Amino acid sequence: MSLSNPLPLGFQWSYVTAGIKASGKPDVALAVCDGPAVAAAMFTSNQLVAAPVIVGKQHLAATGNRVRGVLVNAGNANCATGVAGVEACEQSCVAMADALGCAAHEVLPSSTGIIGVPLPVEKLIAALPAAVDALGADAAAALGFATAILTTDTKVKVAQASFEIEGRTVSIFGCCKGAGMIGPQLASFQPQAPHATMLVYLFTDLAATAERLQSLLQPVVEGSFNAISIDGDMSTNDTVLLLASGKSGVPADGAAELPFAAALAAVCGSLAYQIVDDGEGVTHVVRLEVSGTVSDADALQIARTIAGSPLCKTAWSSADPNWGRLLAAAGRAGVAFDPAKVTVRIAGLPVFAGGMRAADFDEAATHRAMSEREYTIALDLGAGAGKAHFLTCDLTHEYVSINADYST
Amino acid sequence: MSLSNPLPLGFQWSYVTAGIKASGKPDVALAVCDGPAVAAAMFTSNQLVAAPVIVGKQHLAATGNRVRGVLVNAGNANCATGVAGVEACEQSCVAMADALGCAAHEVLPSSTGIIGVPLPVEKLIAALPAAVDALGADAAAALGFATAILTTDTKVKVAQASFEIEGRTVSIFGCCKGAGMIGPQLASFQPQAPHATMLVYLFTDLAATAERLQSLLQPVVEGSFNAISIDGDMSTNDTVLLLASGKSGVPADGAAELPFAAALAAVCGSLAYQIVDDGEGVTHVVRLEVSGTVSDADALQIARTIAGSPLCKTAWSSADPNWGRLLAAAGRAGVAFDPAKVTVRIAGLPVFAGGMRAADFDEAATHRAMSEREYTIALDLGAGAGKAHFLTCDLTHEYVSINADYST
Repeated sequence: MSLSNPLPLGFQWSYVTAGIKASGKPDVALAVCDGPAVAAAMFTSNQLVAAPVIVGKQHLAATGNRVRGVLVNAGNANCATGVAGVEACEQSCVAMADALGCAAHEVLPSSTGIIGVPLPVEKLIAALPAAVDALGADAAAALGFATAILTTDTKVKVAQASFEIEGRTVSIFGCCKGAGMIGPQLASFQPQAPHATMLVYLFTDLAATAERLQSLLQPVVEGSFNAISIDGDMSTNDTVLLLASGKSGVPADGAAELPFAAALAAVCGSLAYQIVDDGEGVTHVVRLEVSGTVSDADALQIARTIAGSPLCKTAWSSADPNWGRLLAAAGRAGVAFDPAKVTVRIAGLPVFAGGMRAADFDEAATHRAMSEREYTIALDLGAGAGKAHFLTCDLTHEYVSINADYST
Repeated sequence: MSLSNPLPLGFQWSYVTAGIKASGKPDVALAVCDGPAVAAAMFTSNQLVAAPVIVGKQHLAATGNRVRGVLVNAGNANCATGVAGVEACEQSCVAMADALGCAAHEVLPSSTGIIGVPLPVEKLIAALPAAVDALGADAAAALGFATAILTTDTKVKVAQASFEIEGRTVSIFGCCKGAGMIGPQLASFQPQAPHATMLVYLFTDLAATAERLQSLLQPVVEGSFNAISIDGDMSTNDTVLLLASGKSGVPADGAAELPFAAALAAVCGSLAYQIVDDGEGVTHVVRLEVSGTVSDADALQIARTIAGSPLCKTAWSSADPNWGRLLAAAGRAGVAFDPAKVTVRIAGLPVFAGGMRAADFDEAATHRAMSEREYTIALDLGAGAGKAHFLTCDLTHEYVSINADYST
């Protein structure tokens, strides 16, 4: 894999193997900004949150969203590990800050992996000197970072975008991990606010204030990471972090605003797609387009309910045009509607209309369309202008195998 | 299978094979009351409801909840079949009423099976004379009724209870079907109220008014059928029907009230258990006991979210004591809590306390306990007196196979 676009100025990346993953693969990833970067962040809204989410929020609050380094370990979520887990996380931040010559509060920690097992922080700290020595600003370093954060993922997930303003280039590099426990509902970071193991790191050389960066990030996350699910199980560690180095010299306001928002949306849209496409056991990616509701929230609620329906997801796994399951799932979403006004199309083919099977429903053709890796299911409720798009996947034997692999 | 208790007085049952099920098994079931029976009913709260639910509600409203006959077909849900489906349902009620010598409004129809395929009502009507001829009040007839209503069920599900008041016996006979698309949320029947393919038929010879019978049924359903899920997919046809013939001569009020409520709860509790135990692909039945919430509704919401979590359900399939998944699911239920105050026990064994793995957590012992067919998971949130119990099951390869069996 290579990166075709320029990387954002002002960042370096590295990765090492600290021995946290049982597989012996790289499991610690560092990202460092040459100077203080401005951060925007969104975290899981789960009631149970991992130590790095607790610590990360405190650090952002302490610095006013200023970050020098990002320290990620894979293989252990450091969640439900008590006070000792928080202390271990803080120790790792102190060690990284010492190596970088910055304050511990300027380090943003992340962890992903099994819940409830003490973090082997001594391995993490022992690996830091080699990781700092390995820092580089090239594509190999960025790709290494993107690789070391993976757990059950089968593919490296990266996306890039760049644009020019008056001869200056603004670049975004993003990468992420996540293949199971994917049902994110990220909430904006605010001190004392309620608080996804999807981890997303976005780097740009745009110049922005923390408030501006947050206002750019939030709507993009709502339309991307908050509009996907694999199994609907929201993680305790979900984190989306956007760091802006300012090194492009291009300010967020003015001419750059719209192109940056579009570029960020493109990067996040691509990464969100890659997460679902690489979901555990996934054989079909399904785009849900719900329209004709009274509100966008109603449409999203219907899409999310269909995306969470075991009967819909198993039917998709065999390309079964069992549209009754779609309607039944929509009908339990808590949104009132009149089935007689609903139309359903699968890959553009008429399926349901007028309260019953569409007159020109072609089961064989619909089955063929659903045999493709990816297709769209469109429901129009016929009641308003609300709409939502949502990306999800099928439920297969392989998903069950991956998540029922306990053996003693 | 035999029935050990006396059957309620005043009812007859029968079954025939009408050719609606592709398997060629019995697929039409009749229950007839010797005189007008008083009915209480609860139906699915899905927005999409089958023709027999629409027609059944109209009939109950027209008669003031008086029923002479129940007509059930399995193999076709008569749902999403448009105006033609409603007309077909009404035709079948007229035909049964003609055979019984009652009004069509006194017939309560039910259907279960595939959604969206026109009901072959001519087969149903053609089978009625033989079904009426076969009516009988003995155990064989009642068991035949209980058998013909099944679809993917592997077991006949019946339960009985009886008690004596001043030398008179009151009996309840109940039967049901349901193995998939089980996530009922039944709402009381009221004309024009929002409107469960779980089908439950309860027969008693108690004497009660319709209002009294409904007030007896509703709390029992909340604690039984509305507190189970297999896949969380609420059906379009779910129906619980309680018919009281009055032939015991024992009135619902007075001395019979508490024993009847207890007997009805025992029958419904048994039937609800049998549904989960016979759920599609089920290898483990899990009792969720959630306590210590601010309200009972909060406890139920947490239990329902855990019961719907693919990661919890797959872990249960392999007896994996992965308690992090339990906490993560509880944490996304929309109920605020402090993880530090939560305790979790599996089969009585300590698992989680003080925000982390319990000090005396014994993974091997917990795995052994979870290898049993049935066990209890207890979560106490430490925040109040709210509580809920909920019955659910694991998610296995077999569930995926059953529901992804489409082939062309």
